[in-house]
Order: sequence, then C-alpha cells, then structure tokens
Amino acid sequence: MSFNEGLRKAQRRQGSLLCVGLDSDLRKIPDFLRREFGDQAVPEFNRRIIDVTKDLVCAYKLNLAFYEARGPRGLAMMEETIDYIPDDIVVIADAKRGDIGNTSKAYAEAIFDRYRFDAATANPYLGLEALEPFLDYRDRGVFILCRTSNPGAREFQDLQCGGEPLYLRVAQAAVRANERLGNLGLVVGATWPEELHELRQLAGEGMPILIPGVGPQAGDLEKAVRYGINRKGEKAIINSSRGVIFASPGEDFAEAARGAAQKLREEINRHRGGD
Amino acid sequence: MSFNEGLRKAQRRQGSLLCVGLDSDLRKIPDFLRREFGDQAVPEFNRRIIDVTKDLVCAYKLNLAFYEARGPRGLAMMEETIDYIPDDIVVIADAKRGDIGNTSKAYAEAIFDRYRFDAATANPYLGLEALEPFLDYRDRGVFILCRTSNPGAREFQDLQCGGEPLYLRVAQAAVRANERLGNLGLVVGATWPEELHELRQLAGEGMPILIPGVGPQAGDLEKAVRYGINRKGEKAIINSSRGVIFASPGEDFAEAARGAAQKLREEINRHRGGD
Repeated sequence: MSFNEGLRKAQRRQGSLLCVGLDSDLRKIPDFLRREFGDQAVPEFNRRIIDVTKDLVCAYKLNLAFYEARGPRGLAMMEETIDYIPDDIVVIADAKRGDIGNTSKAYAEAIFDRYRFDAATANPYLGLEALEPFLDYRDRGVFILCRTSNPGAREFQDLQCGGEPLYLRVAQAAVRANERLGNLGLVVGATWPEELHELRQLAGEGMPILIPGVGPQAGDLEKAVRYGINRKGEKAIINSSRGVIFASPGEDFAEAARGAAQKLREEINRHRGGD
Repeated sequence: MSFNEGLRKAQRRQGSLLCVGLDSDLRKIPDFLRREFGDQAVPEFNRRIIDVTKDLVCAYKLNLAFYEARGPRGLAMMEETIDYIPDDIVVIADAKRGDIGNTSKAYAEAIFDRYRFDAATANPYLGLEALEPFLDYRDRGVFILCRTSNPGAREFQDLQCGGEPLYLRVAQAAVRANERLGNLGLVVGATWPEELHELRQLAGEGMPILIPGVGPQAGDLEKAVRYGINRKGEKAIINSSRGVIFASPGEDFAEAARGAAQKLREEINRHRGGD
C-alpha cells in the first residue's frame, strides 16, 4: 500500500486530520510519572497518550530530537513507542534530514528500515537529488520542508529567486518530483496561512501537506484547515504536539490530552465541512 | 577555550589541516573484524583507525547517520568512539541538523551536552534564528552548510536571489552572525573550487571552513587547500572519510589508513606552503 493510500484510509476511518506530535521531552512530563517510572517515564507517558488519542488521530509524529537527546536509551524509547502505535495509524518521523549520497542512504535506512516509520520530513537545501535514498522507498512518504513554522523562516525561504520566493521554487520541484514518484508531500507551517493557501493550489489534489504550528506557536487553525485541505477536504495533516500532550502537567494529563485532541479534531472537522 | 582557539592549537600542534571522517559503515568494515568482534566491530575499527591517525589529524568528524542507522547500540558506539579520541583533537558532529525552537534546543543538547562534540554542522534552510540554540554554545563551533559537495547541490543553492546565488546569501548571513558571536564556520565541498575561493574571501581570516569531498567524491585537493586556507595557511579543515578509513578492506586496513592519512597530510601541507 502506498503512503498516500494509507493516509487516506486512516483519515477516513478515523474521521480525522489530526496528528499528535509525541515530542515527549522528559522535563515536561508530569512529575508523578517521573517519580514512579524513572527512566521509563517517557515510553509510559507515550503509551498513555496513545491509549487516549488513538481513536482521534490519523497520524502520530515523533520528532527525533527529543529521543536522540536522551542517547541510546532514548532511541530505545522511540522504538517502544513506535511499536505501540496501532498499525493502521500513520507514523511520521519528524527528522528534517538532508545529507548526501551514502549518508542520506544511512539516514533513510535508519528511519524506514530500522524504525519502520511510514513517512519522514526532509530538508531540501542539498537538492532533491540528495533525498533520492528517501524517495526510493516508494511505499513511504517524504515531506519536504517548504515553509517552516518558525519566526525566522523568512530569512532564506522568502528570498526572491527569479521573481519567486525560494519556498515556492522548492515546492515546484517537489510537485514535479511527485508527478514522477507519487510519494512526496510538503511541510508548511500554520503560522503562514497565505503561503499555505498558495501552496495547496500548487500541490493540487493528491499531495499531502503536513501542517505544524497550531497551538503554542499560534498558527490560525481555521485557515490551516481551510487552506490546507484539498477539494475533498482531505490530505492536510494538522499537527499539534505540546498543545495536546502537555495539556495538563498533573495526574489528569491523559484526560486533558484526550480533551484537547477531541476539541481539535472537532474544530478541524467543522472547518473542513466534513463529519 | 573557544572552538576557534582549540582548532588553531590542534592545527599547529599536529601540523595538519586533515580531518578524518569516521563514517564507519559496518558493511564496509573488514570481514575479519566483523567475525572477531561481532557487534563491537565498529568501535574496535574506530579505535584502531584513531590509534594510527591521531598524530596526523587536527580533527575527526563523525557523521551521525552511520551510528543512528544501527539504533540505540549505534549511539553507544558513537559515544565510545568520542571518548577514545584524545581531548586536544577537535571532534565534529556532522549532523546537518536544522529544526525550530525547542526541538533545535534538544538537538543542540544531544550533540553538545550529551555527546560533548566540539562542533556541529547545521542546515540553514530554516534561517539562522532556528540555529540559535546551537550558536548559544559559545565555546563550540557551528558550521553552516553553504555549498554542499553533492552533484545536486546547485538545484537550490545556485538559485539567483537578487543577483546573488543562495549559497552566497547564506554565507553572508553566517559571516554577519560570526562578527557578533565568533563561533560560526562554513561547509563548502571540495567539488566546487571556484565557489570555495569566493567563500574564503568572503569569510575573511577568522572563520573556519570545513571542506569535505576530496577522495571518492573527486574534489581537487590542491584547490581545496589553496582556496580554503586563510593567509596564514590555516582555518581550512580538509576532510576525507572513505578515502582514509576504507583505504584497504583487508587485515592491513589500519596501516593502509595511516598511509592514506599521511599522504593526504603531506599533500595538504605542500599545497598550503607550510611545514
């Protein structure tokens, strides 16, 4: 099954465009879990979050940084977490990798063979040629960073290149490659609604767009949905990380996370005009 | 001690601009080591390479991809390797990370606090603002990808942005930030000698330039040295990975690696007009 097929099925079955980001920074995990589970607090936290959100999401996204920061043990926690996610929910590696030749291949193998992610984010600065080892996994998705959600995104992404900003040139190249390969998507921050609008039009009906930046980064949820979806009201993946998983710092963290996810899913569905 | 100070000392003491890349892909390691050491073949290989090259180099570079590809155990091998490198030799994390806010912070903590690297490579696509968590470690170096060594580097890096190619805009921003912070460097592939020439002139005397791409990637060594050094014949870091560590696939791999490193160091020193 292609990544796009898997994503469509997950979005329809779950009635959800919501992706929950398991950016489970140990320092932000409820104290009582850290006391009770020590080193195992992160995978335990993730399991409880997954338990209460798995009927509400189309995808989970794991940012590798939070696991790598904890060393070899952190990667083991990431593996445990991935294993715990039901098979029919999409799992995205937010890795933002971009390297060359045999090194790019090693990263792709780590993400797709070893950890069995369904998709990964990737950085275009080295050119799409450098990302071929990722793109060669035709049954996995590769989301190209296009317009990132951070305030400094404009520094280079907005530079005018022959009358068009760099992010648009990157998107055009990704769209062209997708016509050939069928497994590319874009990353566009919810903090840039106008650019998102433009990029959905460029991406057409088929390409998924991963949209981080709602929640603490204050992206506009309504615009993220309206501008991010295709005509069928699909193919946008709206990610919230901290806004869901750290909705409460207390013992009620799981219920609070479920509440936040439920609210987000409903709001998203209202804006997409579905359900 | 600043990163630049540490680099200068290492280059002078060792009489070398050579950096050896420990891209120790298990599949390319001599068979006899894999048979004898099994899971421990990678750190054993690295120790033997370090033993025979540590008097010839100013730096070692570890590309994180090759360690991550082996999962939690791979990161432990990376830690063992870093611990084994003598303290007065620079250790560079070739990580090419670029992420936002708290995620960028987690990567910086992994690389600088946990693994204690002296420097890291970083991707500029998200803007230098996104790299602040790296730059905030004032005693570590941050090498901004500017012109990468791969054949597809031109796709975006050569786009004309207001009359100048993107890679030059990136370099200008890095130079400006370096005037304020003093811990930035550039990554410029040896496969692009004219661009390297231009970029050393822009970078001036103080900024280090990390230059991969000699060896199997066929970058011109003489030009890499002549164009990469400053007026004192310093501040270029010439990296060779496979050309040194996989110089022989047999039991003589360590001698062969030493031979290759020695030859490279001598050629580099001939071209820089030193020693």
